Amino acid sequence: MILCRTIAELKNELYSIKHSNDQATIGLVPTMGFLHEGHASLMRQSVAENIASVLSIFVNPMQFGPNEDFERYPRDEARDLAIAKENGIDIVFMPEVKEMYPSKPRTSVMISQLTERLCGASRPGHFDGVGLVVSKLFHLVQPDRAYFGMKDAQQLAVIQQMTDDLNIPVEIVPCPIVREPDGLALSSRNVYLSAEQRQQAVVLSQSLALAKQMVEEKGITPEELIARVKAKISEAGQAEIDYVEWLTYPSLELPAWNEPIADHSEKYILALAVKFGSTRLIDNALFVPNTRGE
Amino acid sequence: MILCRTIAELKNELYSIKHSNDQATIGLVPTMGFLHEGHASLMRQSVAENIASVLSIFVNPMQFGPNEDFERYPRDEARDLAIAKENGIDIVFMPEVKEMYPSKPRTSVMISQLTERLCGASRPGHFDGVGLVVSKLFHLVQPDRAYFGMKDAQQLAVIQQMTDDLNIPVEIVPCPIVREPDGLALSSRNVYLSAEQRQQAVVLSQSLALAKQMVEEKGITPEELIARVKAKISEAGQAEIDYVEWLTYPSLELPAWNEPIADHSEKYILALAVKFGSTRLIDNALFVPNTRGE
Repeated sequence: MILCRTIAELKNELYSIKHSNDQATIGLVPTMGFLHEGHASLMRQSVAENIASVLSIFVNPMQFGPNEDFERYPRDEARDLAIAKENGIDIVFMPEVKEMYPSKPRTSVMISQLTERLCGASRPGHFDGVGLVVSKLFHLVQPDRAYFGMKDAQQLAVIQQMTDDLNIPVEIVPCPIVREPDGLALSSRNVYLSAEQRQQAVVLSQSLALAKQMVEEKGITPEELIARVKAKISEAGQAEIDYVEWLTYPSLELPAWNEPIADHSEKYILALAVKFGSTRLIDNALFVPNTRGE
Repeated sequence: MILCRTIAELKNELYSIKHSNDQATIGLVPTMGFLHEGHASLMRQSVAENIASVLSIFVNPMQFGPNEDFERYPRDEARDLAIAKENGIDIVFMPEVKEMYPSKPRTSVMISQLTERLCGASRPGHFDGVGLVVSKLFHLVQPDRAYFGMKDAQQLAVIQQMTDDLNIPVEIVPCPIVREPDGLALSSRNVYLSAEQRQQAVVLSQSLALAKQMVEEKGITPEELIARVKAKISEAGQAEIDYVEWLTYPSLELPAWNEPIADHSEKYILALAVKFGSTRLIDNALFVPNTRGE
Protein backbone atom coordinates (compact mmCIF):
# COMPACT_ATOMS: atom_id res chain seq x y z
CA MET A 1 0.00 0.00 0.00
CA ILE A 2 1.29 3.44 -0.99
CA LEU A 3 0.64 6.58 1.06
CA CYS A 4 0.46 9.81 -0.97
CA ARG A 5 0.37 13.11 0.84
CA THR A 6 0.65 15.30 -2.26
CA ILE A 7 -1.25 15.54 -5.52
CA ALA A 8 2.00 15.01 -7.43
CA GLU A 9 2.66 11.70 -5.63
CA LEU A 10 -0.92 10.59 -6.24
CA LYS A 11 -0.71 11.40 -9.95
CA ASN A 12 2.57 9.48 -10.27
CA GLU A 13 1.11 6.39 -8.64
CA LEU A 14 -2.05 6.52 -10.74
CA TYR A 15 0.03 7.00 -13.88
CA SER A 16 2.08 3.89 -13.05
CA ILE A 17 -1.05 1.83 -12.52
CA LYS A 18 -2.73 2.99 -15.72
CA HIS A 19 0.38 2.57 -17.83
CA SER A 20 1.23 -0.87 -16.56
CA ASN A 21 -2.29 -2.06 -17.41
CA ASP A 22 -4.44 -0.08 -19.82
CA GLN A 23 -7.51 -2.04 -18.68
CA ALA A 24 -6.92 -0.99 -15.06
CA THR A 25 -10.08 0.23 -13.38
CA ILE A 26 -9.81 2.50 -10.37
CA GLY A 27 -12.17 2.58 -7.39
CA LEU A 28 -12.31 5.58 -5.06
CA VAL A 29 -13.53 5.57 -1.46
CA PRO A 30 -13.66 9.19 -0.29
CA THR A 31 -13.66 9.53 3.52
CA MET A 32 -12.84 11.94 6.31
CA GLY A 33 -10.92 9.20 8.13
CA PHE A 34 -11.39 7.84 11.66
CA LEU A 35 -12.43 4.73 9.80
CA HIS A 36 -14.98 2.21 10.99
CA GLU A 37 -16.61 -0.91 9.64
CA GLY A 38 -18.89 1.18 7.42
CA HIS A 39 -15.86 2.57 5.60
CA ALA A 40 -14.27 -0.89 5.56
CA SER A 41 -17.33 -2.28 3.75
CA LEU A 42 -16.91 0.40 1.05
CA MET A 43 -13.21 -0.45 0.72
CA ARG A 44 -13.90 -4.17 0.36
CA GLN A 45 -16.50 -3.52 -2.33
CA SER A 46 -14.09 -1.26 -4.23
CA VAL A 47 -11.29 -3.82 -3.95
CA ALA A 48 -13.61 -6.54 -5.24
CA GLU A 49 -14.78 -4.51 -8.23
CA ASN A 50 -11.62 -2.71 -9.41
CA ILE A 51 -8.00 -3.41 -10.32
CA ALA A 52 -6.82 -0.69 -7.95
CA SER A 53 -8.52 1.12 -5.06
CA VAL A 54 -7.78 4.57 -3.70
CA LEU A 55 -8.89 5.61 -0.22
CA SER A 56 -8.90 9.35 0.36
CA ILE A 57 -8.74 10.65 3.92
CA PHE A 58 -9.38 14.38 4.13
CA VAL A 59 -11.31 16.30 6.74
CA ASN A 60 -12.65 18.94 4.38
CA PRO A 61 -12.95 22.32 6.11
CA MET A 62 -15.25 23.63 3.35
CA GLN A 63 -18.11 21.33 4.41
CA PHE A 64 -18.10 22.38 8.08
CA GLY A 65 -20.03 25.41 9.28
CA PRO A 66 -18.34 28.00 11.52
CA ASN A 67 -19.87 26.47 14.68
CA GLU A 68 -19.42 22.85 13.68
CA ASP A 69 -16.85 20.27 14.74
CA PHE A 70 -14.06 20.71 12.15
CA GLU A 71 -11.34 21.29 14.75
CA ARG A 72 -12.39 18.48 17.04
CA TYR A 73 -13.40 16.02 14.31
CA PRO A 74 -11.72 12.76 15.41
CA ARG A 75 -8.49 11.76 13.65
CA ASP A 76 -6.28 8.66 14.01
CA GLU A 77 -3.83 8.36 11.15
CA ALA A 78 -1.97 5.21 12.26
CA ARG A 79 -5.16 3.26 12.90
CA ASP A 80 -6.69 4.46 9.60
CA LEU A 81 -3.65 3.28 7.63
CA ALA A 82 -3.79 -0.13 9.31
CA ILE A 83 -7.49 -0.51 8.43
CA ALA A 84 -6.86 0.56 4.85
CA LYS A 85 -4.05 -1.99 4.48
CA GLU A 86 -6.10 -4.79 6.05
CA ASN A 87 -8.90 -4.15 3.57
CA GLY A 88 -6.71 -4.26 0.48
CA ILE A 89 -6.45 -0.56 -0.43
CA ASP A 90 -3.66 0.18 -2.94
CA ILE A 91 -3.26 3.94 -2.48
CA VAL A 92 -4.15 6.15 0.47
CA PHE A 93 -4.40 9.81 -0.49
CA MET A 94 -4.10 11.89 2.68
CA PRO A 95 -3.43 15.54 1.78
CA GLU A 96 -3.04 18.53 4.07
CA VAL A 97 -5.61 21.31 3.75
CA LYS A 98 -3.14 23.55 1.90
CA GLU A 99 -2.53 20.82 -0.69
CA MET A 100 -6.25 20.71 -1.51
CA TYR A 101 -6.83 24.45 -1.12
CA PRO A 102 -3.56 26.27 -1.92
CA SER A 103 -5.65 29.46 -2.01
CA LYS A 104 -9.27 30.22 -1.23
CA PRO A 105 -11.26 28.66 -4.06
CA ARG A 106 -13.40 31.05 -6.11
CA THR A 107 -15.38 28.25 -7.70
CA SER A 108 -18.51 26.90 -6.05
CA VAL A 109 -20.36 23.78 -7.06
CA MET A 110 -23.92 24.18 -5.85
CA ILE A 111 -26.68 21.64 -6.18
CA SER A 112 -30.15 23.17 -5.81
CA GLN A 113 -33.44 21.60 -4.66
CA LEU A 114 -31.85 18.41 -3.30
CA THR A 115 -30.01 20.48 -0.70
CA GLU A 116 -32.97 22.52 0.56
CA ARG A 117 -34.17 20.02 3.17
CA LEU A 118 -32.67 17.64 5.73
CA CYS A 119 -28.98 18.33 6.43
CA GLY A 120 -28.96 21.02 3.74
CA ALA A 121 -31.40 23.07 5.82
CA SER A 122 -29.65 22.37 9.15
CA ARG A 123 -26.14 22.87 7.79
CA PRO A 124 -26.17 25.78 5.30
CA GLY A 125 -23.28 25.54 2.83
CA HIS A 126 -22.46 21.95 3.86
CA PHE A 127 -23.31 20.40 0.50
CA ASP A 128 -21.53 23.14 -1.44
CA GLY A 129 -18.38 22.04 0.41
CA VAL A 130 -19.16 18.39 -0.31
CA GLY A 131 -19.77 19.12 -4.02
CA LEU A 132 -16.50 21.03 -4.27
CA VAL A 133 -14.30 18.44 -2.58
CA VAL A 134 -15.89 15.44 -4.27
CA SER A 135 -15.53 17.12 -7.63
CA LYS A 136 -11.83 17.81 -6.86
CA LEU A 137 -11.27 14.20 -5.76
CA PHE A 138 -12.99 12.88 -8.88
CA HIS A 139 -10.69 15.00 -11.07
CA LEU A 140 -7.55 14.05 -9.10
CA VAL A 141 -8.19 10.30 -9.02
CA GLN A 142 -10.31 9.94 -12.18
CA PRO A 143 -11.88 6.76 -10.81
CA ASP A 144 -14.16 4.44 -12.75
CA ARG A 145 -16.31 3.96 -9.64
CA ALA A 146 -16.74 5.84 -6.38
CA TYR A 147 -18.27 4.30 -3.25
CA PHE A 148 -20.56 6.13 -0.84
CA GLY A 149 -22.52 4.89 2.15
CA MET A 150 -26.31 5.12 2.24
CA LYS A 151 -26.10 6.53 5.77
CA ASP A 152 -25.40 9.87 4.10
CA ALA A 153 -28.38 9.36 1.79
CA GLN A 154 -28.78 13.03 0.94
CA GLN A 155 -25.07 13.31 0.16
CA LEU A 156 -25.39 10.35 -2.16
CA ALA A 157 -28.37 11.93 -3.98
CA VAL A 158 -26.51 15.23 -4.28
CA ILE A 159 -23.35 13.60 -5.64
CA GLN A 160 -25.32 11.50 -8.13
CA GLN A 161 -27.10 14.66 -9.34
CA MET A 162 -23.82 16.57 -9.69
CA THR A 163 -22.22 13.67 -11.53
CA ASP A 164 -25.15 13.45 -13.95
CA ASP A 165 -25.49 17.21 -14.48
CA LEU A 166 -21.76 17.68 -15.14
CA ASN A 167 -21.35 14.42 -17.12
CA ILE A 168 -18.55 13.36 -14.77
CA PRO A 169 -17.41 9.93 -16.03
CA VAL A 170 -17.66 8.14 -12.67
CA GLU A 171 -20.11 5.44 -11.62
CA ILE A 172 -21.52 6.26 -8.18
CA VAL A 173 -21.96 3.09 -6.13
CA PRO A 174 -24.30 3.30 -3.11
CA CYS A 175 -23.44 0.92 -0.26
CA PRO A 176 -25.71 -0.21 2.60
CA ILE A 177 -25.60 1.24 6.11
CA VAL A 178 -23.48 -0.80 8.54
CA ARG A 179 -24.84 -1.02 12.10
CA GLU A 180 -23.69 -1.98 15.59
CA PRO A 181 -25.29 -5.17 16.96
CA ASP A 182 -27.92 -3.04 18.77
CA GLY A 183 -28.80 -1.18 15.55
CA LEU A 184 -26.88 2.11 15.91
CA ALA A 185 -25.56 3.17 12.49
CA LEU A 186 -21.75 3.37 12.48
CA SER A 187 -20.40 6.93 12.44
CA SER A 188 -17.05 8.49 13.26
CA ARG A 189 -19.02 10.86 15.48
CA ASN A 190 -20.29 8.01 17.73
CA VAL A 191 -17.06 8.38 19.78
CA TYR A 192 -18.36 11.72 21.05
CA LEU A 193 -21.26 10.03 22.88
CA SER A 194 -21.20 9.51 26.65
CA ALA A 195 -22.08 6.00 27.85
CA GLU A 196 -25.64 7.09 28.58
CA GLN A 197 -26.05 8.90 25.25
CA ARG A 198 -24.65 5.84 23.46
CA GLN A 199 -27.36 3.73 25.08
CA GLN A 200 -30.10 6.21 24.21
CA ALA A 201 -28.86 6.62 20.61
CA VAL A 202 -30.31 3.22 19.73
CA VAL A 203 -33.65 5.04 19.54
CA LEU A 204 -32.80 6.17 15.99
CA SER A 205 -32.72 2.69 14.47
CA GLN A 206 -35.58 1.58 16.73
CA SER A 207 -37.78 4.39 15.45
CA LEU A 208 -36.94 3.42 11.85
CA ALA A 209 -37.95 -0.17 12.62
CA LEU A 210 -41.19 1.09 14.16
CA ALA A 211 -41.81 3.16 11.03
CA LYS A 212 -41.39 0.11 8.79
CA GLN A 213 -43.98 -1.69 10.85
CA MET A 214 -46.39 1.26 10.67
CA VAL A 215 -46.01 1.73 6.92
CA GLU A 216 -47.06 -1.87 6.46
CA GLU A 217 -50.36 -0.99 8.18
CA LYS A 218 -52.29 0.59 5.30
CA GLY A 219 -53.81 3.95 5.86
CA ILE A 220 -51.10 5.78 7.75
CA THR A 221 -50.27 9.23 6.39
CA PRO A 222 -46.80 10.84 6.32
CA GLU A 223 -48.04 13.26 8.96
CA GLU A 224 -49.06 10.46 11.35
CA LEU A 225 -45.89 8.51 10.63
CA ILE A 226 -43.67 11.45 11.47
CA ALA A 227 -45.61 12.23 14.65
CA ARG A 228 -45.22 8.64 15.85
CA VAL A 229 -41.49 8.54 15.00
CA LYS A 230 -40.94 11.82 16.83
CA ALA A 231 -42.81 10.48 19.86
CA LYS A 232 -40.65 7.35 19.83
CA ILE A 233 -37.40 9.37 19.63
CA SER A 234 -38.55 11.62 22.45
CA GLU A 235 -38.64 8.62 24.76
CA ALA A 236 -34.85 9.01 24.91
CA GLY A 237 -34.35 11.69 27.56
CA GLN A 238 -31.30 13.34 26.01
CA ALA A 239 -32.52 13.22 22.39
CA GLU A 240 -33.12 16.59 20.75
CA ILE A 241 -34.72 16.19 17.32
CA ASP A 242 -33.18 18.23 14.47
CA TYR A 243 -35.45 16.74 11.80
CA VAL A 244 -37.64 13.77 10.99
CA GLU A 245 -38.63 13.86 7.32
CA TRP A 246 -40.47 11.62 4.87
CA LEU A 247 -39.48 12.47 1.31
CA THR A 248 -39.28 10.94 -2.15
CA TYR A 249 -35.85 9.47 -2.87
CA PRO A 250 -33.54 10.39 -4.51
CA SER A 251 -35.46 13.51 -5.60
CA LEU A 252 -36.06 14.56 -1.94
CA GLU A 253 -39.45 16.13 -2.52
CA LEU A 254 -42.37 16.35 -0.11
CA PRO A 255 -45.12 13.85 -0.92
CA ALA A 256 -48.78 14.64 -0.26
CA TRP A 257 -48.89 15.18 3.45
CA ASN A 258 -52.34 14.09 4.50
CA GLU A 259 -52.88 11.22 2.11
CA PRO A 260 -52.24 7.64 3.16
CA ILE A 261 -48.92 6.17 2.09
CA ALA A 262 -50.54 4.20 -0.69
CA ASP A 263 -49.41 1.26 -2.76
CA HIS A 264 -47.21 2.74 -5.45
CA SER A 265 -43.78 2.23 -6.88
CA GLU A 266 -42.04 5.45 -5.84
CA LYS A 267 -39.19 5.18 -3.40
CA TYR A 268 -39.28 7.12 -0.13
CA ILE A 269 -36.80 7.92 2.56
CA LEU A 270 -37.46 8.41 6.24
CA ALA A 271 -34.51 10.49 7.39
CA LEU A 272 -33.61 11.47 10.95
CA ALA A 273 -31.15 13.87 12.54
CA VAL A 274 -31.04 13.86 16.33
CA LYS A 275 -28.67 15.58 18.72
CA PHE A 276 -27.40 14.02 21.94
CA GLY A 277 -25.70 16.88 23.74
CA SER A 278 -23.52 18.49 21.07
CA THR A 279 -23.30 15.31 18.99
CA ARG A 280 -25.54 15.19 15.96
CA LEU A 281 -26.38 11.74 14.58
CA ILE A 282 -28.21 10.88 11.38
CA ASP A 283 -29.90 7.72 10.18
CA ASN A 284 -32.44 6.75 7.53
CA ALA A 285 -34.38 3.96 5.90
CA LEU A 286 -35.63 3.60 2.34
CA PHE A 287 -39.18 2.43 1.60
CA VAL A 288 -40.90 1.18 -1.50
CA PRO A 289 -44.37 1.17 0.04
CA ASN A 290 -45.86 -1.67 -1.95
CA THR A 291 -43.09 -3.94 -0.72
CA ARG A 292 -41.53 -4.33 2.68
CA GLY A 293 -39.13 -1.53 3.70
CA GLU A 294 -35.60 -2.09 2.45
CA MET B 1 -13.67 13.54 -39.94
CA ILE B 2 -16.42 12.04 -37.80
CA LEU B 3 -19.59 13.92 -36.85
CA CYS B 4 -21.10 12.93 -33.49
CA ARG B 5 -24.51 14.23 -32.53
CA THR B 6 -24.87 12.18 -29.37
CA ILE B 7 -22.77 11.66 -26.27
CA ALA B 8 -22.77 7.90 -26.92
CA GLU B 9 -21.29 8.39 -30.41
CA LEU B 10 -18.67 10.78 -29.05
CA LYS B 11 -17.66 8.35 -26.30
CA ASN B 12 -17.33 5.52 -28.83
CA GLU B 13 -15.08 7.55 -31.08
CA LEU B 14 -12.90 8.74 -28.21
CA TYR B 15 -12.65 5.19 -26.91
CA SER B 16 -11.43 3.99 -30.31
CA ILE B 17 -8.79 6.70 -30.45
CA LYS B 18 -7.50 6.07 -26.94
CA HIS B 19 -7.45 2.30 -27.31
CA SER B 20 -5.69 2.32 -30.67
CA ASN B 21 -2.92 4.50 -29.20
CA ASP B 22 -2.46 4.78 -25.46
CA GLN B 23 -0.23 7.83 -25.95
CA ALA B 24 -2.99 9.64 -27.87
CA THR B 25 -3.45 13.22 -26.69
CA ILE B 26 -6.77 14.93 -27.30
CA GLY B 27 -7.27 18.63 -28.02
CA LEU B 28 -10.68 20.28 -27.57
CA VAL B 29 -11.87 23.46 -29.27
CA PRO B 30 -15.21 24.42 -27.70
CA THR B 31 -17.27 26.77 -29.89
CA MET B 32 -20.80 27.95 -30.52
CA GLY B 33 -20.28 27.46 -34.26
CA PHE B 34 -20.70 29.97 -37.12
CA LEU B 35 -16.96 29.53 -37.39
CA HIS B 36 -14.51 32.19 -38.52
CA GLU B 37 -10.76 32.51 -38.85
CA GLY B 38 -10.44 33.02 -35.07
CA HIS B 39 -11.89 29.55 -34.49
CA ALA B 40 -9.80 28.16 -37.34
CA SER B 41 -6.63 29.40 -35.64
CA LEU B 42 -7.62 27.49 -32.47
CA MET B 43 -8.31 24.36 -34.52
CA ARG B 44 -4.93 24.54 -36.26
CA GLN B 45 -3.13 24.94 -32.96
CA SER B 46 -4.98 21.96 -31.49
CA VAL B 47 -4.25 19.84 -34.57
CA ALA B 48 -0.55 20.77 -34.36
CA GLU B 49 -0.27 19.90 -30.67
CA ASN B 50 -2.41 16.76 -30.28
CA ILE B 51 -2.89 13.34 -31.83
CA ALA B 52 -6.63 13.97 -32.20
CA SER B 53 -8.72 17.14 -32.09
CA VAL B 54 -12.35 17.53 -31.16
CA LEU B 55 -14.37 20.59 -32.19
CA SER B 56 -17.56 21.09 -30.23
CA ILE B 57 -20.33 23.20 -31.74
CA PHE B 58 -23.08 23.96 -29.27
CA VAL B 59 -25.04 27.16 -28.83
CA ASN B 60 -25.45 26.84 -25.07
CA PRO B 61 -28.80 28.28 -23.93
CA MET B 62 -27.60 28.43 -20.30
CA GLN B 63 -25.14 31.24 -21.06
CA PHE B 64 -27.70 33.53 -22.71
CA GLY B 65 -29.85 35.90 -20.69
CA PRO B 66 -33.62 36.06 -21.28
CA ASN B 67 -33.28 39.15 -23.50
CA GLU B 68 -30.17 38.04 -25.34
CA ASP B 69 -29.69 36.58 -28.80
CA PHE B 70 -29.94 32.81 -28.18
CA GLU B 71 -32.72 32.31 -30.75
CA ARG B 72 -31.17 34.48 -33.45
CA TYR B 73 -27.53 33.47 -32.76
CA PRO B 74 -26.18 32.72 -36.26
CA ARG B 75 -25.90 29.06 -37.28
CA ASP B 76 -24.51 27.43 -40.48
CA GLU B 77 -23.92 23.74 -40.00
CA ALA B 78 -22.74 22.85 -43.51
CA ARG B 79 -20.22 25.69 -43.65
CA ASP B 80 -18.98 24.88 -40.12
CA LEU B 81 -18.37 21.24 -41.03
CA ALA B 82 -16.43 22.27 -44.14
CA ILE B 83 -14.22 24.62 -42.10
CA ALA B 84 -13.63 21.94 -39.44
CA LYS B 85 -12.59 19.43 -42.12
CA GLU B 86 -10.29 21.91 -43.88
CA ASN B 87 -8.51 22.59 -40.62
CA GLY B 88 -7.84 18.96 -39.76
CA ILE B 89 -10.42 18.33 -37.02
CA ASP B 90 -10.95 14.61 -36.29
CA ILE B 91 -14.27 14.71 -34.44
CA VAL B 92 -17.03 17.31 -34.51
CA PHE B 93 -19.36 17.04 -31.51
CA MET B 94 -22.60 18.84 -32.36
CA PRO B 95 -25.31 17.88 -29.85
CA GLU B 96 -28.90 19.08 -29.62
CA VAL B 97 -29.88 21.03 -26.51
CA LYS B 98 -31.76 18.02 -25.11
CA GLU B 99 -28.66 15.85 -25.44
CA MET B 100 -26.66 18.24 -23.27
CA TYR B 101 -29.54 19.07 -20.92
CA PRO B 102 -31.91 16.06 -20.82
CA SER B 103 -33.53 17.77 -17.81
CA LYS B 104 -33.03 21.13 -16.14
CA PRO B 105 -29.67 20.90 -14.39
CA ARG B 106 -29.71 21.39 -10.62
CA THR B 107 -25.96 21.85 -10.41
CA SER B 108 -24.40 25.29 -10.84
CA VAL B 109 -20.74 25.99 -11.26
CA MET B 110 -20.19 29.57 -10.11
CA ILE B 111 -16.91 31.44 -10.17
CA SER B 112 -16.88 34.44 -7.83
CA GLN B 113 -14.86 37.68 -7.98
CA LEU B 114 -13.65 37.16 -11.57
CA THR B 115 -17.22 37.40 -12.77
CA GLU B 116 -18.23 40.56 -10.93
CA ARG B 117 -16.99 43.02 -13.56
CA LEU B 118 -16.94 43.35 -17.35
CA CYS B 119 -19.32 40.92 -19.09
CA GLY B 120 -20.17 39.32 -15.73
CA ALA B 121 -21.76 42.61 -14.63
CA SER B 122 -23.49 43.27 -17.98
CA ARG B 123 -24.67 39.69 -18.47
CA PRO B 124 -25.77 38.26 -15.09
CA GLY B 125 -25.58 34.47 -15.04
CA HIS B 126 -23.59 34.34 -18.28
CA PHE B 127 -20.44 32.87 -16.73
CA ASP B 128 -22.42 30.37 -14.65
CA GLY B 129 -23.68 29.01 -17.96
CA VAL B 130 -20.18 29.04 -19.41
CA GLY B 131 -18.75 27.25 -16.35
CA LEU B 132 -21.47 24.61 -16.54
CA VAL B 133 -21.13 23.84 -20.23
CA VAL B 134 -17.32 23.93 -20.28
CA SER B 135 -17.20 21.62 -17.29
CA LYS B 136 -19.62 19.23 -19.07
CA LEU B 137 -17.53 19.32 -22.26
CA PHE B 138 -14.33 18.70 -20.31
CA HIS B 139 -15.90 15.63 -18.70
CA LEU B 140 -17.33 14.35 -21.98
CA VAL B 141 -14.18 14.77 -24.06
CA GLN B 142 -11.55 14.46 -21.30
CA PRO B 143 -9.08 16.43 -23.41
CA ASP B 144 -5.41 16.93 -22.55
CA ARG B 145 -5.63 20.53 -23.80
CA ALA B 146 -8.46 22.95 -24.50
CA TYR B 147 -8.12 26.02 -26.70
CA PHE B 148 -9.76 29.38 -26.01
CA GLY B 149 -9.39 32.73 -27.75
CA MET B 150 -8.08 35.77 -25.91
CA LYS B 151 -10.92 37.84 -27.34
CA ASP B 152 -13.04 36.38 -24.54
CA ALA B 153 -10.34 37.26 -22.01
CA GLN B 154 -12.66 37.18 -19.01
CA GLN B 155 -14.03 33.79 -20.09
CA LEU B 156 -10.46 32.50 -20.30
CA ALA B 157 -9.64 33.78 -16.80
CA VAL B 158 -12.85 32.25 -15.43
CA ILE B 159 -12.21 28.88 -17.06
CA GLN B 160 -8.59 28.80 -15.87
CA GLN B 161 -9.78 29.56 -12.32
CA MET B 162 -12.45 26.84 -12.44
CA THR B 163 -9.95 24.34 -13.83
CA ASP B 164 -7.45 25.13 -11.06
CA ASP B 165 -10.03 25.20 -8.25
CA LEU B 166 -11.59 21.89 -9.29
CA ASN B 167 -8.27 20.22 -10.26
CA ILE B 168 -9.67 19.44 -13.70
CA PRO B 169 -6.86 17.65 -15.56
CA VAL B 170 -6.95 19.87 -18.68
CA GLU B 171 -4.32 22.35 -19.87
CA ILE B 172 -6.01 25.60 -20.85
CA VAL B 173 -4.31 27.11 -23.92
CA PRO B 174 -4.95 30.82 -24.59
CA CYS B 175 -4.77 31.82 -28.26
CA PRO B 176 -4.32 35.34 -29.71
CA ILE B 177 -7.16 37.47 -31.07
CA VAL B 178 -7.56 37.23 -34.86
CA ARG B 179 -8.52 40.49 -36.60
CA GLU B 180 -9.87 41.71 -39.93
CA PRO B 181 -7.38 43.71 -42.04
CA ASP B 182 -8.82 46.97 -40.62
CA GLY B 183 -8.41 45.73 -37.03
CA LEU B 184 -11.93 44.55 -36.12
CA ALA B 185 -11.69 41.45 -33.94
CA LEU B 186 -13.38 38.46 -35.56
CA SER B 187 -16.71 37.50 -33.98
CA SER B 188 -19.67 35.43 -35.08
CA ARG B 189 -21.78 38.44 -34.09
CA ASN B 190 -20.10 40.70 -36.69
CA VAL B 191 -22.66 39.46 -39.24
CA TYR B 192 -25.36 41.38 -37.38
CA LEU B 193 -23.70 44.73 -38.22
CA SER B 194 -25.11 47.01 -40.95
CA ALA B 195 -22.57 48.31 -43.46
CA GLU B 196 -22.32 51.57 -41.59
CA GLN B 197 -22.02 49.92 -38.17
CA ARG B 198 -19.32 47.62 -39.59
CA GLN B 199 -17.34 50.66 -40.65
CA GLN B 200 -17.76 52.36 -37.30
CA ALA B 201 -16.88 49.18 -35.35
CA VAL B 202 -13.23 49.66 -36.23
CA VAL B 203 -13.21 52.23 -33.42
CA LEU B 204 -12.76 49.40 -30.86
CA SER B 205 -9.36 48.27 -32.11
CA GLN B 206 -8.39 51.89 -32.89
CA SER B 207 -9.09 52.91 -29.31
CA LEU B 208 -6.98 50.00 -28.03
CA ALA B 209 -4.12 51.14 -30.27
CA LEU B 210 -4.52 54.68 -28.95
CA ALA B 211 -4.41 53.30 -25.41
CA LYS B 212 -1.13 51.50 -26.08
CA GLN B 213 0.35 54.73 -27.30
CA MET B 214 -0.89 56.62 -24.22
CA VAL B 215 0.34 54.00 -21.74
CA GLU B 216 3.82 54.43 -23.19
CA GLU B 217 3.65 58.12 -22.18
CA LYS B 218 4.59 57.89 -18.51
CA GLY B 219 2.34 59.51 -16.02
CA ILE B 220 -1.12 58.64 -17.34
CA THR B 221 -3.52 57.28 -14.73
CA PRO B 222 -6.15 54.59 -15.32
CA GLU B 223 -8.80 57.27 -14.89
CA GLU B 224 -7.31 59.44 -17.67
CA LEU B 225 -6.75 56.44 -19.91
CA ILE B 226 -10.35 55.32 -19.66
CA ALA B 227 -11.67 58.82 -20.26
CA ARG B 228 -9.59 59.13 -23.43
CA VAL B 229 -10.61 55.70 -24.70
CA LYS B 230 -14.28 56.50 -24.07
CA ALA B 231 -13.90 59.80 -25.94
CA LYS B 232 -12.32 57.98 -28.87
CA ILE B 233 -15.10 55.37 -29.01
CA SER B 234 -17.74 58.09 -28.85
CA GLU B 235 -16.45 59.50 -32.15
CA ALA B 236 -18.36 56.62 -33.75
CA GLY B 237 -21.89 57.96 -34.00
CA GLN B 238 -23.70 54.65 -33.42
CA ALA B 239 -21.41 53.39 -30.66
CA GLU B 240 -23.02 52.95 -27.26
CA ILE B 241 -20.46 52.06 -24.60
CA ASP B 242 -21.34 49.18 -22.26
CA TYR B 243 -18.00 49.27 -20.42
CA VAL B 244 -14.39 50.37 -20.74
CA GLU B 245 -12.33 48.88 -17.92
CA TRP B 246 -8.67 48.73 -16.90
CA LEU B 247 -8.06 45.78 -14.59
CA THR B 248 -5.31 43.45 -13.45
CA TYR B 249 -5.19 40.26 -15.51
CA PRO B 250 -6.09 37.45 -14.99
CA SER B 251 -7.23 38.41 -11.46
CA LEU B 252 -9.54 41.17 -12.84
CA GLU B 253 -9.12 43.52 -9.90
CA LEU B 254 -9.26 47.31 -9.92
CA PRO B 255 -5.81 48.87 -9.69
CA ALA B 256 -5.22 52.20 -7.91
CA TRP B 257 -7.37 54.59 -9.86
CA ASN B 258 -5.60 57.91 -9.58
CA GLU B 259 -2.01 56.73 -9.60
CA PRO B 260 0.05 56.75 -12.77
CA ILE B 261 0.36 53.43 -14.57
CA ALA B 262 3.87 52.93 -13.29
CA ASP B 263 6.69 50.68 -14.35
CA HIS B 264 5.90 47.33 -12.80
CA SER B 265 5.58 43.75 -13.82
CA GLU B 266 1.87 43.12 -13.28
CA LYS B 267 -0.23 42.40 -16.30
CA TYR B 268 -3.26 44.55 -17.09
CA ILE B 269 -6.18 44.29 -19.45
CA LEU B 270 -8.02 47.10 -21.16
CA ALA B 271 -11.40 45.58 -21.97
CA LEU B 272 -14.21 47.10 -24.02
CA ALA B 273 -17.83 46.24 -24.69
CA VAL B 274 -19.66 48.48 -27.14
CA LYS B 275 -23.09 48.17 -28.68
CA PHE B 276 -23.91 49.10 -32.27
CA GLY B 277 -27.69 48.98 -32.42
CA SER B 278 -28.57 45.67 -30.77
CA THR B 279 -25.20 44.11 -31.55
CA ARG B 280 -22.75 44.00 -28.66
CA LEU B 281 -19.06 43.68 -29.53
CA ILE B 282 -16.13 43.10 -27.19
CA ASP B 283 -12.40 43.58 -27.61
CA ASN B 284 -9.37 43.90 -25.35
CA ALA B 285 -5.63 44.32 -25.16
CA LEU B 286 -3.15 43.08 -22.55
CA PHE B 287 -0.46 45.37 -21.17
CA VAL B 288 2.70 44.77 -19.18
CA PRO B 289 3.35 48.45 -18.55
CA ASN B 290 7.15 48.31 -18.41
CA THR B 291 7.21 46.78 -21.88
CA ARG B 292 5.24 47.62 -24.99
CA GLY B 293 1.61 46.46 -24.97
CA GLU B 294 1.16 42.90 -26.19
